[in-house]
Amino acid sequence: MYKLAPSLLAADFGILKQQLEELERADVPYIHLDIMDGVFVPNLSFGLSVVQSIRKYTKMVFDVHLMIIEPERYVEQFAKAGTDIFCFHIEATKNAKELVAKIKELGMKAAIALKPATPISTIEELLPQLDMVLVMTVEPGFGGQKFMEDQMEKVKKLAELRSQHDYHYDIEVDGGINPQTLKTVFANGANVIVAGSAVMGAEDISARVKEFAQIAKDYNI
Amino acid sequence: MYKLAPSLLAADFGILKQQLEELERADVPYIHLDIMDGVFVPNLSFGLSVVQSIRKYTKMVFDVHLMIIEPERYVEQFAKAGTDIFCFHIEATKNAKELVAKIKELGMKAAIALKPATPISTIEELLPQLDMVLVMTVEPGFGGQKFMEDQMEKVKKLAELRSQHDYHYDIEVDGGINPQTLKTVFANGANVIVAGSAVMGAEDISARVKEFAQIAKDYNI
Repeated sequence: MYKLAPSLLAADFGILKQQLEELERADVPYIHLDIMDGVFVPNLSFGLSVVQSIRKYTKMVFDVHLMIIEPERYVEQFAKAGTDIFCFHIEATKNAKELVAKIKELGMKAAIALKPATPISTIEELLPQLDMVLVMTVEPGFGGQKFMEDQMEKVKKLAELRSQHDYHYDIEVDGGINPQTLKTVFANGANVIVAGSAVMGAEDISARVKEFAQIAKDYNI
Repeated sequence: MYKLAPSLLAADFGILKQQLEELERADVPYIHLDIMDGVFVPNLSFGLSVVQSIRKYTKMVFDVHLMIIEPERYVEQFAKAGTDIFCFHIEATKNAKELVAKIKELGMKAAIALKPATPISTIEELLPQLDMVLVMTVEPGFGGQKFMEDQMEKVKKLAELRSQHDYHYDIEVDGGINPQTLKTVFANGANVIVAGSAVMGAEDISARVKEFAQIAKDYNI
């Protein structure tokens, strides 16, 4: 089922309450939170202080994408801060299996992110346990990059594996999404869509959200 | 000269614009920004996304306290984001001297922070170049901790060294400051005061700011 997850990275951090309310009025279900520690990726975005503060202002699903080393160090704190989906990079941890179990034990949904150069084989044995797989369609670290169409192979393969094995994960894409590339990702089987400036930077956010929803409908997502 | 630097860590990140405006109305000169990467300290607070976004909402001096490893990696980005004072921990870098020069070259003021266990001797040769020395009066990483009075030795020594050598640095204290401990830090020679919940959590922020200013006046700071 289609879910839109606008990225807070493209928001104005001076008026987050207002920005979240605008997204909620537009019936946006998820908010994508890009946590960067400046070590796993070459950027320092925001962390627990922001997540904790904004939880009280919205009922949207907190789709937390951790671009940090050793995400297991912070799993309890992100659960406590109100994280609904805990998504980590497979390269960031030495024990992904244990971390997935811990995420679920804490009542969150478990997701793993794949950088453009990271193949599905690195997470294949974990697929039965996952609630979501995030396919990066840009290099993680910054907003405003160009969509990498070659990542659609991975999206297609993940959709195939899911139907072959009766897995239940959603397929999320992140990076360079606009109304045009949106059609491409839907055609290949993604259903959770991270959008930065295309949504947060739209003159009329609600109209852009409706436009995206119509495209999802056209593709039966 | 006395300067109050309330910490954003104690703010509500959903309404930062509003919180900054409230501080400005109360004539607060500095805002203290605690950047934590989850590696140098066991907490992930916030980073560049927040600093960039809020710069347009206030003219307050951005007193940026970097609790991150290898702060030299981000010196240009923090300068660009509108940092006025760039403060790093002496243990976090291998080349503090070069970093101090770089900070100044980029038009920022240079400051170094000392954790409770870190002696002044670690920064003694840099003192002539520094615009500020931050004496931590709690372990860095979290708000709401108890003031460590034993750190006053360091404050007193820094004030002595300054008058002996004609150095120009300010002396900042951070952690556990309330109207009571404020008297102690003034009595020992500190003049830049980081305050968390004592200011941001006060029922009447403006009244609390005036109370602090009156104490500063009593101590001729």
